[in-house]
Amino acid sequence: MTHPLLDLAPLSPAQFAAVEDQVAKLLGTAQDVVVMQGEALLPLEACIRGAAGPGTTALNVITGPYGRTFGDWLRDCGATVHDLPVPFHTAVTADQVAEALQAHPETDFVSLVHAEAATGNTNPVAEIGEVVRAHGALFMVDAVASVAAEPLLPDDWGVDLCVIGAQKAMGGPAGVSAVSVSERAWRRMAANPRAPRHSYLSLLDWKDRWTDAGRTVLPHAPAQLEMLALGACLARIEADGADAVRARHATAAAATRAGAEALGGGLAPYVVRAVDAAPVATTLRAPAGVHASALVARARAADPGLPLVAGGGALATEMIRVNHYGADATPGTVHACLAALGAALAEEGRTVDLAAARAAATAVWQG
Amino acid sequence: MTHPLLDLAPLSPAQFAAVEDQVAKLLGTAQDVVVMQGEALLPLEACIRGAAGPGTTALNVITGPYGRTFGDWLRDCGATVHDLPVPFHTAVTADQVAEALQAHPETDFVSLVHAEAATGNTNPVAEIGEVVRAHGALFMVDAVASVAAEPLLPDDWGVDLCVIGAQKAMGGPAGVSAVSVSERAWRRMAANPRAPRHSYLSLLDWKDRWTDAGRTVLPHAPAQLEMLALGACLARIEADGADAVRARHATAAAATRAGAEALGGGLAPYVVRAVDAAPVATTLRAPAGVHASALVARARAADPGLPLVAGGGALATEMIRVNHYGADATPGTVHACLAALGAALAEEGRTVDLAAARAAATAVWQG
Amino acid sequence: MTHPLLDLAPLSPAQFAAVEDQVAKLLGTAQDVVVMQGEALLPLEACIRGAAGPGTTALNVITGPYGRTFGDWLRDCGATVHDLPVPFHTAVTADQVAEALQAHPETDFVSLVHAEAATGNTNPVAEIGEVVRAHGALFMVDAVASVAAEPLLPDDWGVDLCVIGAQKAMGGPAGVSAVSVSERAWRRMAANPRAPRHSYLSLLDWKDRWTDAGRTVLPHAPAQLEMLALGACLARIEADGADAVRARHATAAAATRAGAEALGGGLAPYVVRAVDAAPVATTLRAPAGVHASALVARARAADPGLPLVAGGGALATEMIRVNHYGADATPGTVHACLAALGAALAEEGRTVDLAAARAAATAVWQG
Amino acid sequence: MTHPLLDLAPLSPAQFAAVEDQVAKLLGTAQDVVVMQGEALLPLEACIRGAAGPGTTALNVITGPYGRTFGDWLRDCGATVHDLPVPFHTAVTADQVAEALQAHPETDFVSLVHAEAATGNTNPVAEIGEVVRAHGALFMVDAVASVAAEPLLPDDWGVDLCVIGAQKAMGGPAGVSAVSVSERAWRRMAANPRAPRHSYLSLLDWKDRWTDAGRTVLPHAPAQLEMLALGACLARIEADGADAVRARHATAAAATRAGAEALGGGLAPYVVRAVDAAPVATTLRAPAGVHASALVARARAADPGLPLVAGGGALATEMIRVNHYGADATPGTVHACLAALGAALAEEGRTVDLAAARAAATAVWQG
Repeated sequence: MTHPLLDLAPLSPAQFAAVEDQVAKLLGTAQDVVVMQGEALLPLEACIRGAAGPGTTALNVITGPYGRTFGDWLRDCGATVHDLPVPFHTAVTADQVAEALQAHPETDFVSLVHAEAATGNTNPVAEIGEVVRAHGALFMVDAVASVAAEPLLPDDWGVDLCVIGAQKAMGGPAGVSAVSVSERAWRRMAANPRAPRHSYLSLLDWKDRWTDAGRTVLPHAPAQLEMLALGACLARIEADGADAVRARHATAAAATRAGAEALGGGLAPYVVRAVDAAPVATTLRAPAGVHASALVARARAADPGLPLVAGGGALATEMIRVNHYGADATPGTVHACLAALGAALAEEGRTVDLAAARAAATAVWQG
Repeated sequence: MTHPLLDLAPLSPAQFAAVEDQVAKLLGTAQDVVVMQGEALLPLEACIRGAAGPGTTALNVITGPYGRTFGDWLRDCGATVHDLPVPFHTAVTADQVAEALQAHPETDFVSLVHAEAATGNTNPVAEIGEVVRAHGALFMVDAVASVAAEPLLPDDWGVDLCVIGAQKAMGGPAGVSAVSVSERAWRRMAANPRAPRHSYLSLLDWKDRWTDAGRTVLPHAPAQLEMLALGACLARIEADGADAVRARHATAAAATRAGAEALGGGLAPYVVRAVDAAPVATTLRAPAGVHASALVARARAADPGLPLVAGGGALATEMIRVNHYGADATPGTVHACLAALGAALAEEGRTVDLAAARAAATAVWQG
Repeated sequence: MTHPLLDLAPLSPAQFAAVEDQVAKLLGTAQDVVVMQGEALLPLEACIRGAAGPGTTALNVITGPYGRTFGDWLRDCGATVHDLPVPFHTAVTADQVAEALQAHPETDFVSLVHAEAATGNTNPVAEIGEVVRAHGALFMVDAVASVAAEPLLPDDWGVDLCVIGAQKAMGGPAGVSAVSVSERAWRRMAANPRAPRHSYLSLLDWKDRWTDAGRTVLPHAPAQLEMLALGACLARIEADGADAVRARHATAAAATRAGAEALGGGLAPYVVRAVDAAPVATTLRAPAGVHASALVARARAADPGLPLVAGGGALATEMIRVNHYGADATPGTVHACLAALGAALAEEGRTVDLAAARAAATAVWQG
Repeated sequence: MTHPLLDLAPLSPAQFAAVEDQVAKLLGTAQDVVVMQGEALLPLEACIRGAAGPGTTALNVITGPYGRTFGDWLRDCGATVHDLPVPFHTAVTADQVAEALQAHPETDFVSLVHAEAATGNTNPVAEIGEVVRAHGALFMVDAVASVAAEPLLPDDWGVDLCVIGAQKAMGGPAGVSAVSVSERAWRRMAANPRAPRHSYLSLLDWKDRWTDAGRTVLPHAPAQLEMLALGACLARIEADGADAVRARHATAAAATRAGAEALGGGLAPYVVRAVDAAPVATTLRAPAGVHASALVARARAADPGLPLVAGGGALATEMIRVNHYGADATPGTVHACLAALGAALAEEGRTVDLAAARAAATAVWQG
């Protein structure tokens, strides 16, 4: 009674099931949805360790850093892995995937990241899905950085394992995440002797003890606050309209790209074709002679809260990333990032046109 | 059990008293602090109706719209009121107050707004307090827009009634507010036959039933969430350091002023002397030929969330206000406002230097 | 950015208006609803000071302590007041009201508390409303302790001013409250020269600056958290079903009454007829020779959190009150209170039957 | 701006590190503390998979269901496992552990559950720790159901891996948990080729990327709300006093035990010796001829919110569990459970003394 806001009642099974149903509705899926009690890395790892083993031949598309992690996991599971790396300033094409499958006809598992927040590209999952389905392989998609920012239709696109998290475009909690699982994927896991069981990493445990058991007794206590926040976040997206949320992200990306092009000073979009650019984050190529991470540091010195980062690893010299997801998919954030980058470039002696950048971005927002 | 976040337990008397003590600590006061269950208008009205009556002669300093409201209340109470209006682009001086008291030696009540968010000026309460104390009048100060943004020491300055709210520089809730009351002020109210009693507006009720009664039984149920939020807000200010919070506001004001001056295009500080400018909001004079509210509308069209407003009433044509309090007392907000105003001026055909504005503001922040 | 849960954004006018509409829906009213920024005492006082003046003749029904307060306010406003006191162990009848109106035909204002949490009775507002309407007087009802606990239909019942708060049966915040105002009541206030204006107590201010002004600019900053909590609370009642919430309270009252009667030891219902007993709280008469507040102290010594209190003032010797509203309108609370009272009576040497009390209460719950 | 309570800012590294330090303070440990982003099963599994492999010989003490799970994990890791099962109505003794270690001198890992919420016993970790330390084995303790309810001193007691969760006696969130890791345990994991790496289950990843890397960049986004709630929960325990929180749980257990013994009707403590009974939950043996889960169902029919459950699996016929942790470690909950069990027994035709049960429990509370 004395600490009313801190004594947390456990989440009920009905509340938990309701959140799963909200996720299914957002994804427009009739497949099972499993909400996992951890960051989205948990279902990603659970999918690969559940579905892959020594007999698996995997085609692993690499369009950013997460693709590399997936390859590591697949090899650790004993799978034969064919990596399909694609330059980070492009998207993979359905043709490239078809060609790779032709080269490795025994492939029975394809892993792909839908949108890459880290590199700023997005891949044509619908088209690739057709190719994968025709080949008959299981298709896993990491949609953490695309959900709520761009169309995502796992059932229509033949995605067997579609992993999402709420912390990017959904503007929600990072501590719980979800995956939709097709019947085919469940069968693959059930047949995999090395699929985790009796483990925090096990999707099959969850299926046996929850999904197929009438969803009446939770296998373990869920993260109450994160689940409530995920439910609230999904309710908000439904209230705002998922189309409107997606449009807001697409506009933020287009405005950032247009503004950066108008800014001058040598800044250029990193992802060559606009159609390949992700709605959650716009990556920019630093001007020749300018170190990207130094430029970002300069821009953030004045505005420490700006969602600007340099590329990771080797990309730190050349790539600047503007995150514009969730509450940052707004004119204010886009303008602030463009202005800060412009000011930093000016300090480096480059000529920029702050007013033109702002006008170009505004024109996109005002449609 | 089923709705853990919604069944609100009542606040205990001990919790309530603890928040009062936190307020007293922030104000550095040994006087009684009354936390009232309403917006800050409630204690402001309660002070005037409690202390003033037909026998009162009041000097009411007007440096913005709230001063006018105080005059209305004083007259409504039957007091004889001498208004001391001061142009809104200045502060009142202790000399002006001394002169007015000399002209009306029978004055026994002085009301003053410390900082005016609406007009952007701030008044030298410490110096004025000396004058008022020497004269022997009761001194009421509205510190809603100054608390946490600039020094405020009611005991040292001889303030008898010091009203605060949390919704500006404190970044807290608007639904509860507080007033410190000196012994002299209590005596004045007790002797006032028209002071509200048995009323939501009564400070004396609160004194009798709570402050002087051991603070063990609350006169009525308080606003639980707002009280918890006020306590949390005060704890945060203590954790951050009240000095640091004040410095952040002072810097925001200086950066905005410097940036606006560097921007050009005809924009100028509204409050003539920097020393008279309030830390919570910077008011600017629109260039000749530019309508302030049209300029603000233009600036906000691109960034609807910006804390920019035009002056109220007759000031709508000439005054632009940049609010920079609480979470907005940051470089990001200041830069965003300057850039938006610059872009709007450029659209109106004015020549502005966005880069110079940004550089000037940044120089202030980096101190 | 660093304190995400504490930097409170102001409530928007649209959010505020939506909460007003939710209140109107709960009350089934087509009248204006004003949500006031304070505990329910604020709208109660605002109604009386707004509607009453020297020319007013008021019939003030007193069925508990709040009726006395209303009489004080009415007299303070200059009204001629005819009190109609009723023994607290009964309800007033429509006939009694009719008779009083006949005795004072000039009566143009009637004030009534619907349910009295403090004395445990509830009054037949529908029937009384017919009488008052036939007489032509303005009818004000304090429904703070009845809303969500029993039927409440201000429009059908001819209530001109119907005041509610959320802290009892609604299980919501105490810091904001509401009143529905009929056209007739607005006209009465507009014609009253002493109705508060330019005051925290003014309903007319709110009408002029908000209700009739398109609800686009809030007159002052509302209590963000309390308003959000009120909205959430109303949404929950709608989700649970207002009928189900009312039924839960009615059952809690019936179970408490039945359990107390079965307990023995000399305990008896205070309100003689079950039909006059309020659903939010059951009052009991202490056995002869037992001091009620001593018995409550004994019962609470073992379970400090129990919602048991002794009667106020002179009733402290004879009345015990069991509150069972909001989260306490449950079998668990009712059983706990009965068991604690039984144990305390046994300690006083009385013979009680704990098992019979529990069985009687359970039988009511299991319907 | 429009949904202020839903746009969650990411947790900063400094905030995360501060929560780790709060956990270390509660545990009085100088070892590394790792806060993991999942229910306590995650660190438990991570400890076993990190520390155990084909070369490991484990002594696995089984005093309840979790001991069985640990044995499954150990075997799955390839360890040689010697189970030491102990009847669930007792605790294991240090002598039994010493004997088992003598029988299997090659043992280099010992796993033990401190307190078992499911069976209601608690084990003498301090004494067992001495034995294990003397033997030189690594010592892992599951303290999820003991932390904050009874003394827990991993460093003094030679615990190498001490896992806690906040959802029981701490009254906190279930979605994050923690483990203290000794230098010896880190070395064991580093030398284990099968220790998870690049995995959600990996403690070593966390050590490399966070603990040993200056705690400046979080390896992945943490669960913001759960982390804030964990920090708030730890702050509250510190404010209340950890000793007082532990005493509250010990008293709840003693009162429940005394009350059940006084109730009669054939109910008896399940754990034979009071010293072996856990402070978080009291298990009771159903009277002969009464089915425990039927009795619980009957007791809960009247009060659905009561923290009463029947034993799991085969224990469902004979064991009744009264949970009294967190907000339920209060007289109110204890009394309510005793009264509900008494009423259910009476319905089954047993003679019970509700008043004696209440008096016995009250006497313990008023101690």
